[in-house]
Amino acid sequence: MTRQEYNRQAAEALAYLERAHIALTEEEKRSVEVADFGMGMVRELGLQLIVYINTDRVCAKEMVLLPGQTCPEHWHVPTDGRPGKEETFRCRAGEVYLYVEGEPAESIRAKLPPSEVTVFHEVILHPGEQYTIMPETKHWFQGGPEGAVISEFSTRSTDETDIFTDKRLIRSPEIEE
Amino acid sequence: MTRQEYNRQAAEALAYLERAHIALTEEEKRSVEVADFGMGMVRELGLQLIVYINTDRVCAKEMVLLPGQTCPEHWHVPTDGRPGKEETFRCRAGEVYLYVEGEPAESIRAKLPPSEVTVFHEVILHPGEQYTIMPETKHWFQGGPEGAVISEFSTRSTDETDIFTDKRLIRSPEIEE
Repeated sequence: MTRQEYNRQAAEALAYLERAHIALTEEEKRSVEVADFGMGMVRELGLQLIVYINTDRVCAKEMVLLPGQTCPEHWHVPTDGRPGKEETFRCRAGEVYLYVEGEPAESIRAKLPPSEVTVFHEVILHPGEQYTIMPETKHWFQGGPEGAVISEFSTRSTDETDIFTDKRLIRSPEIEE
Repeated sequence: MTRQEYNRQAAEALAYLERAHIALTEEEKRSVEVADFGMGMVRELGLQLIVYINTDRVCAKEMVLLPGQTCPEHWHVPTDGRPGKEETFRCRAGEVYLYVEGEPAESIRAKLPPSEVTVFHEVILHPGEQYTIMPETKHWFQGGPEGAVISEFSTRSTDETDIFTDKRLIRSPEIEE
């Protein structure tokens, strides 16, 4: 991802958050994180987020997905002697197509992403709806036609220990200056 | 608190949440909790809330304070063999006057509430601003002139083990039918 792509994604995410009436400090606006998972196709495979808090016990974030943009399949393993991360996704605006382990849908609403996916139990989240993903449960999710703003409430976030189904993926973005 | 008072508080809270553009399901709208802490003066001493999630590890709520309404001073003690609740208050709309242990303010913005308070370190939260309260820290908070909508991100909530400074207070409301 180039610095220009990073800045464009961050600016778009802030526009989504503003339309969703999410108040942010100036410091938070400057802290938008853009993940492209090392695949260099951030519009299709990527995620924009602002971390509000991440202590030893609690984490909260605001996440933005562009229309059709996918956060690739991954799961959270035990870390630092504690169970893996437990997370609740709450849709604040737009629509989220979420896929987790369980009975697969006959056909799915999401477009298949350009990275490997293996779970197809479908959960559609509209504004005000939420879903809790317990540790070690494979999941991936995609923004609907209008994108999505999602609040995440979770235990401590340790992105660096996430396991991706598609072994080409990496969590930390590399920005080419 | 009478059923009529309870319903009025819940309806006002939902109006605040709607003005703050917080999307809720119909089930959540029916689940508004009104606490009057047993003092029977809910407009001055009370809190309205919707619990989004409260698992063994994570809790998230939306809280509403009317103008000048106070959540009385309390703290969170170790429960079920774990450290006390840790909570982050994030102001989404309005203004919050929060008081915690530490250097007391020379004069405080809040009106003194009708229950005992002993900590006066002042933290004013505007929309987008937040503050994290670690376990066993005494705190109380009041809605500013326009009231306040506050997201809470925390460890498991066990309200029944909260300790109040003012020993007349109780957490569970009694509704007279």
